[in-house]
Amino acid sequence: MSRTAKEVAVYLRATVKGDGEIFVRGVAGPEKAGAEDLIYLDAPRNRERVMRSAARCVVAKPGTAIAGKTTIEAEDPKLAFAKAAAFLFEKSEAKPTVHATAIVAASAKLGANVSVGPYVVIEDEVRVGEGTVIEAFCFVGRGSGIGADCRLHARVTLYAGAQIGDRTEIHSGVVVGGDGFGYVFGEGRQWKFPQIGRVEIGNDVEIGCNTTIDRGSLGDTRIADGVKIDNLVQVAHNVEIGAQTVIAAQTGISGSSILGSRVMVGGQAGIGDHCRIEDGASVGGQAGVVVGKTVRSGEVVWGTPARPLGKFKQQYGWLTR
Amino acid sequence: MSRTAKEVAVYLRATVKGDGEIFVRGVAGPEKAGAEDLIYLDAPRNRERVMRSAARCVVAKPGTAIAGKTTIEAEDPKLAFAKAAAFLFEKSEAKPTVHATAIVAASAKLGANVSVGPYVVIEDEVRVGEGTVIEAFCFVGRGSGIGADCRLHARVTLYAGAQIGDRTEIHSGVVVGGDGFGYVFGEGRQWKFPQIGRVEIGNDVEIGCNTTIDRGSLGDTRIADGVKIDNLVQVAHNVEIGAQTVIAAQTGISGSSILGSRVMVGGQAGIGDHCRIEDGASVGGQAGVVVGKTVRSGEVVWGTPARPLGKFKQQYGWLTR
Amino acid sequence: MSRTAKEVAVYLRATVKGDGEIFVRGVAGPEKAGAEDLIYLDAPRNRERVMRSAARCVVAKPGTAIAGKTTIEAEDPKLAFAKAAAFLFEKSEAKPTVHATAIVAASAKLGANVSVGPYVVIEDEVRVGEGTVIEAFCFVGRGSGIGADCRLHARVTLYAGAQIGDRTEIHSGVVVGGDGFGYVFGEGRQWKFPQIGRVEIGNDVEIGCNTTIDRGSLGDTRIADGVKIDNLVQVAHNVEIGAQTVIAAQTGISGSSILGSRVMVGGQAGIGDHCRIEDGASVGGQAGVVVGKTVRSGEVVWGTPARPLGKFKQQYGWLTR
Repeated sequence: MSRTAKEVAVYLRATVKGDGEIFVRGVAGPEKAGAEDLIYLDAPRNRERVMRSAARCVVAKPGTAIAGKTTIEAEDPKLAFAKAAAFLFEKSEAKPTVHATAIVAASAKLGANVSVGPYVVIEDEVRVGEGTVIEAFCFVGRGSGIGADCRLHARVTLYAGAQIGDRTEIHSGVVVGGDGFGYVFGEGRQWKFPQIGRVEIGNDVEIGCNTTIDRGSLGDTRIADGVKIDNLVQVAHNVEIGAQTVIAAQTGISGSSILGSRVMVGGQAGIGDHCRIEDGASVGGQAGVVVGKTVRSGEVVWGTPARPLGKFKQQYGWLTR
Repeated sequence: MSRTAKEVAVYLRATVKGDGEIFVRGVAGPEKAGAEDLIYLDAPRNRERVMRSAARCVVAKPGTAIAGKTTIEAEDPKLAFAKAAAFLFEKSEAKPTVHATAIVAASAKLGANVSVGPYVVIEDEVRVGEGTVIEAFCFVGRGSGIGADCRLHARVTLYAGAQIGDRTEIHSGVVVGGDGFGYVFGEGRQWKFPQIGRVEIGNDVEIGCNTTIDRGSLGDTRIADGVKIDNLVQVAHNVEIGAQTVIAAQTGISGSSILGSRVMVGGQAGIGDHCRIEDGASVGGQAGVVVGKTVRSGEVVWGTPARPLGKFKQQYGWLTR
Repeated sequence: MSRTAKEVAVYLRATVKGDGEIFVRGVAGPEKAGAEDLIYLDAPRNRERVMRSAARCVVAKPGTAIAGKTTIEAEDPKLAFAKAAAFLFEKSEAKPTVHATAIVAASAKLGANVSVGPYVVIEDEVRVGEGTVIEAFCFVGRGSGIGADCRLHARVTLYAGAQIGDRTEIHSGVVVGGDGFGYVFGEGRQWKFPQIGRVEIGNDVEIGCNTTIDRGSLGDTRIADGVKIDNLVQVAHNVEIGAQTVIAAQTGISGSSILGSRVMVGGQAGIGDHCRIEDGASVGGQAGVVVGKTVRSGEVVWGTPARPLGKFKQQYGWLTR
């Protein structure tokens, strides 16, 4: 959507220096930007790139003057730029429609302005909130619920009963609600332990491509508001993940583990069964948190078995001598 | 399906204490259970939860009396509970149908009572056994065979020629029979080595969401009866996996490795090319078994490079001092 | 396609010993081969297996005589066999058609002899080059471009704007162009950083099942000619991968890292943000290259944190004593 620099600044509660009436229509990096793209400058080493850019409007720290360009002043230019992008890209979608090839059960309830793409299957007793977009090939199993203003990209699978909040975005290939991995060995074979719990996902969550989130066995798997999960992550049965926690690609979280709020998990980390990662803790990339372990609030752990970063560095430094 | 406590006990060859005529219709954890759900008690610390539960029927160790509840006595209550769940959930499915949008080749042979969901594609010369359920969006490539009483959840892909046994369950996003990863470098580029073998999967296997199982290059990839594979696991070309082996999420098994029977592999483990993991061995989570290595029967290995657990602990203990 | 031994030899610029007029129609391993399958012999230990094979034509080193068989002589029999397989399997495909259930936007441009399978969705402004095969359930997003003679197996997803070169093969479940994983924390929540760049994939690339390749954030993600990527690999935003590089299964490459040409990456390796892996370097299986690190041309690294193999062995040897 096209906005003036001033409108963007008002949205950001920021000050404009220079011509506030110029239009911005998108965002870009300095080299790719056209005249009407917004760019940002957050470090002096990028000043040259910004000066040479065709963009006419820059988000920058207060007091930054760039010849010939309008400046929107922000203490954290990268944050302001991200927020401006969300503002500029707000709902310019086409008119919502349900594609003729979508198979929507008669008992499913779709809110106003829901968009359903080609070859979507929506089963019985599903509820979809207002303004949600469900793209091609999505499968929404019986009794699932999806909130308002969500986006399911092409080819998302919700097993029966999965519950999704508002404004949540799920990328292609994600499977929500597959059976957890639990067996009891007896009489020479594995017997499947019942996997009949649910998955509950909050508001403003984003889930990356081909990630899998299993349903609870007897209880539920729960992902709180604002959680961000990257591609190819495994979330096992009965896991709970607290608000605003961020989990990088290919991480695996085993059954019944509990992650607090604002936890950071690096890529390819492994968290064993029944672990507890407290609020604000960080688990390094490829770290392995062993079964039943607690990582204290604010702690940073590394390595396998995962231990505090300082200890890891000390041991490793010693080994290298 | 609704059964009396006594019917469940007869199935389990167990004894009922209390009123054997009460009905059970499902299973649950103590807190979520309704009056007609079956619950279990396997450890004294859970006694309080069970006493407070609305459930009227409990599987518990012989001699466990709980006021007001019927008890089904079993030496291993969790195992008996898992078996009872399978008994209660037996085939209560709707009448099997082939959905009008399914595209089934004229030369495909479907057994009696096969159920085919919307937007399924079944190619030429496919055989599907009696009672099998193929859910929405499955792709069954030319010449594949699926046994009786299998369940393919929504969006399973079988490349041409994949062979699946009876009572096997495959979850969403699984790809069976993709090309193995093999190239020969020459004349400045990679030439693909032929990947024309098959995948053969046995009876009573379960395969988790988004797992990939490659076809053999010239030989075959083989997964024996009763194997359980979690989500996002990679099984490379020409791998053989023995009966009742269990493989946790995100593990990778490289080309031509052979796993015996009743092997346990933890999450995110990596097994190099041409390894041999003998019957009953265990590979710890995140362990890395290096190329060509043998893990002896019953051995437990940990770490990268994987070594016996005792040795790993000794080395690690020493490092931490 | 059926060829004479001599025709195969001419294609390989090799010499035939024995009857050059016999036909070969396929390739196989010695045990599975029929009379008209081509086999190869590259090591004396396999001589017995080859002698007993039903195959009448063998690729072998110059001077290898095997009673009753025609020999195609090659210095590198495995390479010659791989090339012969490609020659024999050339385009024997059925007549190209666009399936009646495929939904192809009016503004999409398909070249000559393009084949489109059932339930494919091709959005607006897509271009597809001559001879390309797009199998069932593929989703080709708005503005994507696919070159000539490509093969997209069943269920490939291209987000809007993805660009694919010629003769590239993409396996089932791959997602190209999903949003990168980038957020800016502020005001108590994560704000999504714009993910609006593209993915550009070159010629002769192969990408394994369920792999994910994210679009650039402001710049682009680039995969050069001849790159081979295995199953379940994660390629993050703004990554660049040089020509002929080979990446094994379940590896993760974090944002903005640059891999040179002919790099080898083992399975389950992790490469942190902003790393540089120079031409011809090797990263061992499960190795972890820490953020910002450079691996020099030709270097072989192992372990987490990744260090030169010699150093790793020295440290590990010392630890085990």
